[in-house]
Amino acid sequence: MSPKEQYPSKLLEDAVEAIGSLPGVGKRSALRLALHLLRQPSESVHHFADAIIHLRDDVKYCKECWMISDDDVCSICCDKSRDHNEICVVENVRDVMSIENTGQYHGVYHVLGGIISPIDGVGPSDLTISELVSRIGRLVNSSASESVEVIMALRGDVEGETTAFYIYRQIEKFGVRVSSLARGLGFGDDLEYADALTLGRSITGRQPFKPE
Amino acid sequence: MSPKEQYPSKLLEDAVEAIGSLPGVGKRSALRLALHLLRQPSESVHHFADAIIHLRDDVKYCKECWMISDDDVCSICCDKSRDHNEICVVENVRDVMSIENTGQYHGVYHVLGGIISPIDGVGPSDLTISELVSRIGRLVNSSASESVEVIMALRGDVEGETTAFYIYRQIEKFGVRVSSLARGLGFGDDLEYADALTLGRSITGRQPFKPE
Repeated sequence: MSPKEQYPSKLLEDAVEAIGSLPGVGKRSALRLALHLLRQPSESVHHFADAIIHLRDDVKYCKECWMISDDDVCSICCDKSRDHNEICVVENVRDVMSIENTGQYHGVYHVLGGIISPIDGVGPSDLTISELVSRIGRLVNSSASESVEVIMALRGDVEGETTAFYIYRQIEKFGVRVSSLARGLGFGDDLEYADALTLGRSITGRQPFKPE
Repeated sequence: MSPKEQYPSKLLEDAVEAIGSLPGVGKRSALRLALHLLRQPSESVHHFADAIIHLRDDVKYCKECWMISDDDVCSICCDKSRDHNEICVVENVRDVMSIENTGQYHGVYHVLGGIISPIDGVGPSDLTISELVSRIGRLVNSSASESVEVIMALRGDVEGETTAFYIYRQIEKFGVRVSSLARGLGFGDDLEYADALTLGRSITGRQPFKPE
């Protein structure tokens, strides 16, 4: 599609521009999607638009963990069967969903809402780090600090490690246990095709062999 | 993402479902897009939703050619410099945009709104064929029928040829010229990699050699 593409209608052009502003959606796909919506019944298109508006305007952030939620406190933080002394620190909502999906974690979360990245202009004050610090402060006031564990489940790149280190410096005064996700080869990964960094970490972080 | 994926919010789930109903957008991309919209300013999200609603509810179809338009008659049909005796019959709006984009066509269009396809339950009455027939009828009443040309710019498959043939049978009584798009190898296509049908048509439809 040429850059000087003429649209037969301003309304179509506006819709294509709006849809094309979504990440990963090019002008060509945007046109295809706009024409698809044009062929749908008016009620479906209103339902589509309403769902997006409601999400943006009515969704709440959990007061405890900053996960998105329909209520003031999310269903995970409300769940008494979960271990509230185990806080898994993640970058975003999708990370919570991925970890929940494993079914292997029974603690609670803290959603930072991003990661420290000077290049993208994201500093500690743009994230929910001070909320995390005061949350841990409240926790060690009510239970023994050794029973509290903070799990850094952040990316393994420079930004992720910087963020984890920044948080660590803020919370070390509380004397809580701090851990981070195990990194190494994935199950089923082939040594031959593993990247050098991952394979290197797999070797330096090797675990005692446990015959089962 | 597992099928039993739990959403932390019903609002998010509804938005993901709405976005995931678009063609070619999977659940994973839909979640990514929903979370992207959540991070945008409320005004941008309202602007996005409004653009789609306006397109669906306010766009018009040109009374002459059934192209989408902001007015009752589209800009192409309004353009007096175009040849109104040359009607290019296409399946949909995108085909008009593609042909316009070539800059090689100076007549007008007729958008069928689909193609005859018994498998998809699309019959002649679902398309703007009767409107095309009466349009050509009006045209031959006001000008000589030999000066009118109908160009079938439909797909080369069975449905496209069936539709073209159906239209041809309806308009042959008017004695207008009927043509169809040239088919053959694309410019720059390699004989070795051309499909047999295209190469076959290129040979049977060969053109006199014109040294320039």
